[in-house]
Amino acid sequence: MFFASDNSGPVAPAIMAAMADANSGHSMAYGNDPWMEKAQAEIREVFEAPEAAVYLVSTGTAANALALSTLTSPFQAIYCSPLAHIVEDECNAPEFFSGGARMSPVGNSVKINPDALRDVIAGQAQGDVHCTQRGPLSITQVTERGTVYTLDEIRALTRIAQDFDLPTHLDGARFANAQVALGCTPADMTWRAGIDAVSFGGTKNGCMGVEAVIFFDPAHAWQFELRRKRAGHLVSKHRYLAAQMLGYLQKDLWLTLAKTSNAKGAALAEGLATIPDASLAHPVDANMLFLTLPRALHVKLQAAGARYAVMGDLTAGADDDALMCRLVCDWSISDDAIDQFLTLARAG
Amino acid sequence: MFFASDNSGPVAPAIMAAMADANSGHSMAYGNDPWMEKAQAEIREVFEAPEAAVYLVSTGTAANALALSTLTSPFQAIYCSPLAHIVEDECNAPEFFSGGARMSPVGNSVKINPDALRDVIAGQAQGDVHCTQRGPLSITQVTERGTVYTLDEIRALTRIAQDFDLPTHLDGARFANAQVALGCTPADMTWRAGIDAVSFGGTKNGCMGVEAVIFFDPAHAWQFELRRKRAGHLVSKHRYLAAQMLGYLQKDLWLTLAKTSNAKGAALAEGLATIPDASLAHPVDANMLFLTLPRALHVKLQAAGARYAVMGDLTAGADDDALMCRLVCDWSISDDAIDQFLTLARAG
Amino acid sequence: MFFASDNSGPVAPAIMAAMADANSGHSMAYGNDPWMEKAQAEIREVFEAPEAAVYLVSTGTAANALALSTLTSPFQAIYCSPLAHIVEDECNAPEFFSGGARMSPVGNSVKINPDALRDVIAGQAQGDVHCTQRGPLSITQVTERGTVYTLDEIRALTRIAQDFDLPTHLDGARFANAQVALGCTPADMTWRAGIDAVSFGGTKNGCMGVEAVIFFDPAHAWQFELRRKRAGHLVSKHRYLAAQMLGYLQKDLWLTLAKTSNAKGAALAEGLATIPDASLAHPVDANMLFLTLPRALHVKLQAAGARYAVMGDLTAGADDDALMCRLVCDWSISDDAIDQFLTLARAG
Amino acid sequence: MFFASDNSGPVAPAIMAAMADANSGHSMAYGNDPWMEKAQAEIREVFEAPEAAVYLVSTGTAANALALSTLTSPFQAIYCSPLAHIVEDECNAPEFFSGGARMSPVGNSVKINPDALRDVIAGQAQGDVHCTQRGPLSITQVTERGTVYTLDEIRALTRIAQDFDLPTHLDGARFANAQVALGCTPADMTWRAGIDAVSFGGTKNGCMGVEAVIFFDPAHAWQFELRRKRAGHLVSKHRYLAAQMLGYLQKDLWLTLAKTSNAKGAALAEGLATIPDASLAHPVDANMLFLTLPRALHVKLQAAGARYAVMGDLTAGADDDALMCRLVCDWSISDDAIDQFLTLARAG
Repeated sequence: MFFASDNSGPVAPAIMAAMADANSGHSMAYGNDPWMEKAQAEIREVFEAPEAAVYLVSTGTAANALALSTLTSPFQAIYCSPLAHIVEDECNAPEFFSGGARMSPVGNSVKINPDALRDVIAGQAQGDVHCTQRGPLSITQVTERGTVYTLDEIRALTRIAQDFDLPTHLDGARFANAQVALGCTPADMTWRAGIDAVSFGGTKNGCMGVEAVIFFDPAHAWQFELRRKRAGHLVSKHRYLAAQMLGYLQKDLWLTLAKTSNAKGAALAEGLATIPDASLAHPVDANMLFLTLPRALHVKLQAAGARYAVMGDLTAGADDDALMCRLVCDWSISDDAIDQFLTLARAG
Repeated sequence: MFFASDNSGPVAPAIMAAMADANSGHSMAYGNDPWMEKAQAEIREVFEAPEAAVYLVSTGTAANALALSTLTSPFQAIYCSPLAHIVEDECNAPEFFSGGARMSPVGNSVKINPDALRDVIAGQAQGDVHCTQRGPLSITQVTERGTVYTLDEIRALTRIAQDFDLPTHLDGARFANAQVALGCTPADMTWRAGIDAVSFGGTKNGCMGVEAVIFFDPAHAWQFELRRKRAGHLVSKHRYLAAQMLGYLQKDLWLTLAKTSNAKGAALAEGLATIPDASLAHPVDANMLFLTLPRALHVKLQAAGARYAVMGDLTAGADDDALMCRLVCDWSISDDAIDQFLTLARAG
Repeated sequence: MFFASDNSGPVAPAIMAAMADANSGHSMAYGNDPWMEKAQAEIREVFEAPEAAVYLVSTGTAANALALSTLTSPFQAIYCSPLAHIVEDECNAPEFFSGGARMSPVGNSVKINPDALRDVIAGQAQGDVHCTQRGPLSITQVTERGTVYTLDEIRALTRIAQDFDLPTHLDGARFANAQVALGCTPADMTWRAGIDAVSFGGTKNGCMGVEAVIFFDPAHAWQFELRRKRAGHLVSKHRYLAAQMLGYLQKDLWLTLAKTSNAKGAALAEGLATIPDASLAHPVDANMLFLTLPRALHVKLQAAGARYAVMGDLTAGADDDALMCRLVCDWSISDDAIDQFLTLARAG
Repeated sequence: MFFASDNSGPVAPAIMAAMADANSGHSMAYGNDPWMEKAQAEIREVFEAPEAAVYLVSTGTAANALALSTLTSPFQAIYCSPLAHIVEDECNAPEFFSGGARMSPVGNSVKINPDALRDVIAGQAQGDVHCTQRGPLSITQVTERGTVYTLDEIRALTRIAQDFDLPTHLDGARFANAQVALGCTPADMTWRAGIDAVSFGGTKNGCMGVEAVIFFDPAHAWQFELRRKRAGHLVSKHRYLAAQMLGYLQKDLWLTLAKTSNAKGAALAEGLATIPDASLAHPVDANMLFLTLPRALHVKLQAAGARYAVMGDLTAGADDDALMCRLVCDWSISDDAIDQFLTLARAG
């Protein structure tokens, strides 16, 4: 019953195999190897973006912070949800990498509201040296509350950025989960929807630790490469990053894994819907659930071995205090684990 | 004939096996897992440092820049060799991570001269707000020219730092190679010799990508953890870093690999000593050789498939221009490759 | 009719005279002069803080950013009003000086609400390396909307900071105006109310360009001095900063000037209260007014030579659209200018 | 006998008068005033640069760091003399303002040697992401040892920078002293000699605290303005900076002052040349002397009230130890002070 995060599960066997396959003989370091050449070509093909600049790094925070800092100057704002990973979970990495850009959370919800975005951007005076200058928009797909932007919703936001001539970034730590939820192509969800740069996550969906950073305009390439090296994120034995990505993309493994974890999420949500004490806080569009359960039930579930994050104090309060929790299904979570969890929850 | 770098070879099979072994079931992310607990304990034991703060990151530049920035304030100097990796090969990473500390190269040689070090430090006025303030000393072992500091040489430098109450860092990208060359213990080469923080390299000696950062004073722990996360260097599926380190340390594999690569280096050096046209520029204390060869011989060797770095222009000049090159033997380089190289070199 | 800002008026004659008096003979630079010795002693006496570290800089943004960065680490949040000068008017200076700390605006009002502050601080998990860490509180007195915190209101906020062991800063760009409004002492409004560091403004109250930075705990002294020099804010001919401050403090000139400008503000507010079309948006506690006037009246006033900031578009809209404006009275504004403005406004 | 620095003397009366003249009535802040408009026009005329972007700041470190950071990216090197003010006297300000660029001192002398410059630049590999990238050249005129580059010497250096497509900066803290020494025009010494940006100092030559930053290519304007504000260097009561500059330029006051201080320097040098114990270390091209005197003579001079910097320990050593010192003549130093100093020195 391990629902703590989709980075808690093992690496998909085919990806391990791809790494093992790459483990033979000598090759040039730092990405100058045939694996990377192939990985780059495949990503360009998958994204229908033959000119894109494509890079691999080993963490999501690095992918986001490096991509955003390439699009931002230190005098600018970064528009995002107040619940964005870059706001909540990266220990000021965007400020660090950008040299002091300002996080500008928009509104109060996990999905950015277009009107609120337009108001915030318009509210920052142009050409006034005293103010933070306008900068890039960053959205997260799957959002940090498990919902998925529709293509229209993405377009509505990127159009506003474009109206102000601002670049756009998509934090796709759960890119594949969103894509299979929408049934669209990678291009649909990115450059065709007005996205300029993507953090294309692999780690949360079965890889060991690899995220691609993709700029559809290759003019950003050299600056990104300098930023990556300066931040210690240029991996020397780079072929193992490339091999992961090759294994991930091969035979649509990435989509298969995402479909699996989304299906697990749906099954868990469906089961919880039948439990009166459980109350879902957000639509479950992918593999991540936010819901409230009575405090006493949390205590019981965790005592029985369930692993997941609870927001609030489990050690004090009334038994029926509704405490929010997050459950994430990775591709490897067993149906048994889900059943066991639901049985315990149902028993109350 | 692949002598380009010790990060060009494959991962040692036992390390791959350790990673595969770890690839089962769920575990908490970010280092809160049993593998990391074990890795930490083993490193503490290997270093005879039961209180040490021990961390894993995936690149050497990250290890160095994070360790140094933890020991430095932005107003300070970092004393090092002008040939140090942190000076020559990290694209201003020390400045970036430290928030603008000043690199202060000492003297002209790869091994820092104690008198020069004392002069440089003493030459920076204390208590004068206009000057760069005194900061940490960083030395590299094995040095960037393939030589190894004796324990006395290390102690002579750290004693000076201590005289000025300055912290010390050892860039041990090739830690194991130096240790087996000296026949000493890890403690001898570090805290017993006055070192406060170590980048303990695994990547260049058979790992896929893991470096430990060790602070013998655990007071640095929390700041380091914040710096690591903020820099995107806290790996989520951290168990695979820990598993590498466990495989690396198990049954002294790390020492075996280093002895092997040093022996290959020695064999190559011995062979080259018999070739009149080859002139070693530095003693070969470990697995890395710097030597000059005639330009025409470089051209021939490279045409025959030898891979290594040449400083200078291969495409122009006299045939007998002596051009410096670097040859590095990793643990996996074959005796045949060495023989083949020597045969070609001998043939001239 | 110049109500654009209190930095639009001239320097008070006694302060100009003090600078002229200092303009004779040689003295050591960078603050090592008798004027600074005297200024420091006087500020310590005025603040009843014999141990305080006292510095002078030439701009308010420098005072704020240097003071805050001394109290902050790059991993932390800075709690403040969303309307704070450090948020709205300093072009990311706090991020720059702090090396990437995060601005954390609390609530929606210019005065920080204590409950909101407690919630925001408590909401940032302690000991979680992923999150922005808790950092200093900064409040502005007079606030950016012309209101003045009572001593109880200040204490309510600093007590919360202290509960979380966080330092506190007071942006006193209009310190004197607040002090005379409250009828308290400088100590009452600062260290007795739980403030650790103060930007003690002179520029907006009749000086040419000088702000003191005061740390009641002198342990911050050396770091501040390094930060100041590194930021290019250590003035060489420092005696002219000190002379300004001496002139400012002599015979309570600073309080006289502040009483004057507050009285002008009150007179303007009183007059506007009789004008039906004018609607004050905030209490006028000091020398700064925020009010709405009909668009057509703004147009008329500005055409007649009134200078002040209007938020909104004067060139389009209905005549009776209520547009917010800011009027600031400096000590030198004439009663005639106020009368002229009120007469025009009354005429509608 | 005050030879400590040219920032130790008073402000020239005509400059004080210009500030007093400006002290009347209201005006817009932050440089939007008629004084600045006039100052900008005059600087453009003086430099024969009608398109130049012209700014005023209050310290030399700010002028240098802001100018250089506008020309540099954080991945780059800044080429300069190892004795440059930006290296020796600014507490890592260039690193701070640039976001972590690397200082790259060239050679060992105060004047940069062209061959050494070319070698250093050429030695930094192009297109290699591991290395510090090539960046701007900064030279100081008058140099930090009191010598003056000839126009040919400047051109020789800027030509190299141009060969590598790198921008150039001139730290003109003592610009006027150099100009009158050379008998050239400001344009000759800057853009006609290949300089892109200038710190045009006023403070050391009789102003209270003002330095102009001039970019001959106005494309740098907006970025500079953002950098200046973000660093707290946009002065609100800016008219007093402009008034200083106007007073400084009026009727060639700046040249008169520089001629005066250079003449004082020459008189002092001439006198010292007749003293056997005094040994000038550098040609005295302007108003600054570096020489050695016996330790005992230093002790006697300082006891008699002479103020100047001695490099070395006055409190210990043999009487006839030759210790280096620096003497600077500002425009206000009296002939009597010089005579008195020489008489004492002659007496031995």
